Amino acid sequence: MFSLEIESDKLKEALEAAEVLVDECKLNFTPEGFTIRAVDPANVAMVTLELQREAFINYEADEGEIGVDLKKLLDLLAMSRKDDLVNLQLDETGHKLLIQIGGLSYTTSLLDPSTVRKEPKIPKLELPSQIRLSGSVLVRAIKAADKVGSYLWMKVDNNSAVFTLEAEGDTDHVQLTLSQDELIALQSSTDARSLFSIEYLLDIGKTLGKANEVRINLANDHPVKIQFSIADGCGEVSYLIAPRVESD
Amino acid sequence: MFSLEIESDKLKEALEAAEVLVDECKLNFTPEGFTIRAVDPANVAMVTLELQREAFINYEADEGEIGVDLKKLLDLLAMSRKDDLVNLQLDETGHKLLIQIGGLSYTTSLLDPSTVRKEPKIPKLELPSQIRLSGSVLVRAIKAADKVGSYLWMKVDNNSAVFTLEAEGDTDHVQLTLSQDELIALQSSTDARSLFSIEYLLDIGKTLGKANEVRINLANDHPVKIQFSIADGCGEVSYLIAPRVESD
Amino acid sequence: MFSLEIESDKLKEALEAAEVLVDECKLNFTPEGFTIRAVDPANVAMVTLELQREAFINYEADEGEIGVDLKKLLDLLAMSRKDDLVNLQLDETGHKLLIQIGGLSYTTSLLDPSTVRKEPKIPKLELPSQIRLSGSVLVRAIKAADKVGSYLWMKVDNNSAVFTLEAEGDTDHVQLTLSQDELIALQSSTDARSLFSIEYLLDIGKTLGKANEVRINLANDHPVKIQFSIADGCGEVSYLIAPRVESD
Repeated sequence: MFSLEIESDKLKEALEAAEVLVDECKLNFTPEGFTIRAVDPANVAMVTLELQREAFINYEADEGEIGVDLKKLLDLLAMSRKDDLVNLQLDETGHKLLIQIGGLSYTTSLLDPSTVRKEPKIPKLELPSQIRLSGSVLVRAIKAADKVGSYLWMKVDNNSAVFTLEAEGDTDHVQLTLSQDELIALQSSTDARSLFSIEYLLDIGKTLGKANEVRINLANDHPVKIQFSIADGCGEVSYLIAPRVESD
Repeated sequence: MFSLEIESDKLKEALEAAEVLVDECKLNFTPEGFTIRAVDPANVAMVTLELQREAFINYEADEGEIGVDLKKLLDLLAMSRKDDLVNLQLDETGHKLLIQIGGLSYTTSLLDPSTVRKEPKIPKLELPSQIRLSGSVLVRAIKAADKVGSYLWMKVDNNSAVFTLEAEGDTDHVQLTLSQDELIALQSSTDARSLFSIEYLLDIGKTLGKANEVRINLANDHPVKIQFSIADGCGEVSYLIAPRVESD
Repeated sequence: MFSLEIESDKLKEALEAAEVLVDECKLNFTPEGFTIRAVDPANVAMVTLELQREAFINYEADEGEIGVDLKKLLDLLAMSRKDDLVNLQLDETGHKLLIQIGGLSYTTSLLDPSTVRKEPKIPKLELPSQIRLSGSVLVRAIKAADKVGSYLWMKVDNNSAVFTLEAEGDTDHVQLTLSQDELIALQSSTDARSLFSIEYLLDIGKTLGKANEVRINLANDHPVKIQFSIADGCGEVSYLIAPRVESD
């Protein structure tokens, strides 16, 4: 059982961060907030997300989980106007969600959590190179790369302390080299380079363009972890994208 | 024969109010203004509309009718810029309309009025419950309802003096309950409830969203009448939408 | 070999002026600037264009030509933000173009100039009637004409000193008559009238709407020449469109 009140924009921001990868997911509630863990249908990208009780105006919840159709829920939340608050309540049966937005009262059926794809186990990874940069800089590089090819190299050159994003197409090549001046920070004790599908980066780019600071963790031929805060620091989104390992 | 001059935006507003229901219609001219009466192809929704001579800068007209292709006429009027005046003149033969907008002179063929669908007879109806509210509030409820289902209940609860808009889908339900605070006025001596197709409400919603005040007249399982002023009060639009009567 | 630096918007303006007619073209470089000459696939419209070295921040070029895919190049330039500068360099082999825009480094393959369609010979024409008018007025007339038909008459009436744009459809007719008040200038010692395909005028309309002054040169049943300045006067675009000669 839960009863929540939150600025509609904060809830939308959190749900959209999952919706770029999956249509349906589970929301896991605890007295401290809710979390989402999900993996895209092709098992290439995972999202982990938490929204803390501090992000809410009112937050009362027991331990529990619900299954939600993210597209439908975001479609209903699209009825909210700027600065609208949204109230969410689970009905007694646990099968219906009551949503109140600016006078509108929606009742929507929830998914049976047992029918939602199992949550992924998040692997523990050593990703020793960390780059911190503005979300808009990263998104610009992804879009530039998309014009020439399908895969993007992310590279840290430890000696020269630069972070390079690079894509190669059949006839074209593009590169964005960011030195420490253009980054918020670069911490690395070694070189690192991995190759990623631009398709997935474009998907998550929809949500991270607004982030003032995005943290990238990288290693050699390892997944990349891309993290940023939401809800004025009262929430956190973390993506993990599998690398494409070049065949010989 | 007629010769008219009017702000282009006022003429467009009037013609669009008919065009949401029909592609072609007759314009009936008298020395006092023109009127339109039309019914949509499925006979679910009627529009009655008048634009009084006071809405025009110059207005000279005899009794008479012309047949117009509303989509084509609105497409030509789309060439007008903000604050442009438009001049309309019927040529001597009565078969051609001369349109002047910001230096452009169009001549467009009219439809033979005998080929345009016969104008509907407007039924006299007792619709004792009247609700007056902002057009934008009504349009928001229609859009919210469209997200869950195909039909919208309009209900007046006389005791509690509230107006309720409600839609039910296969899995979802939405309701907007408006008390007298949120309405401009509610006058009713009895309960009333009727069910309407959201498709038609969305169509007319295109024109009534800008109206400061929309008047709804309702009864039990009867058509709803939805009225609003245009052209700064020098014109009036009235829609009548047939109810969907629930089968047992 | 060349090495150029220019405001991205100026380069885009120049390339778009050619791209409305052709997908690929040659850029001919001299120490004084570059030029383009191209004809559309149906041989109806030609473009001649020059961008002088004064339009550039840095300009170093030998005599030479390169073949470019205009759509691809404009797609890359679309990554530039307002006020971004763009650097272009030809690599040593002459087959690759290096493009730098706001930190992004693109390398793109050029087309073999011998595979690009041969540049047209620009005919010498006597077009004694000259009309100078705002680009937006001309574009408005083209769009108005497009609503009624496929061909646009351009006519100069020497006696009354008016320029008329006129189109006729199956049922409709539109005319825009511009006297010297509404034109920047009209110089003509004779009447002139020719008929042109609106399709091509719409294409070039995409680029000339922003021009403060467009110069039209006209004769009887002759091509029309339409010219305007780009890059703050450091460049010039000239279109030549073949007339449609009415069969008897």
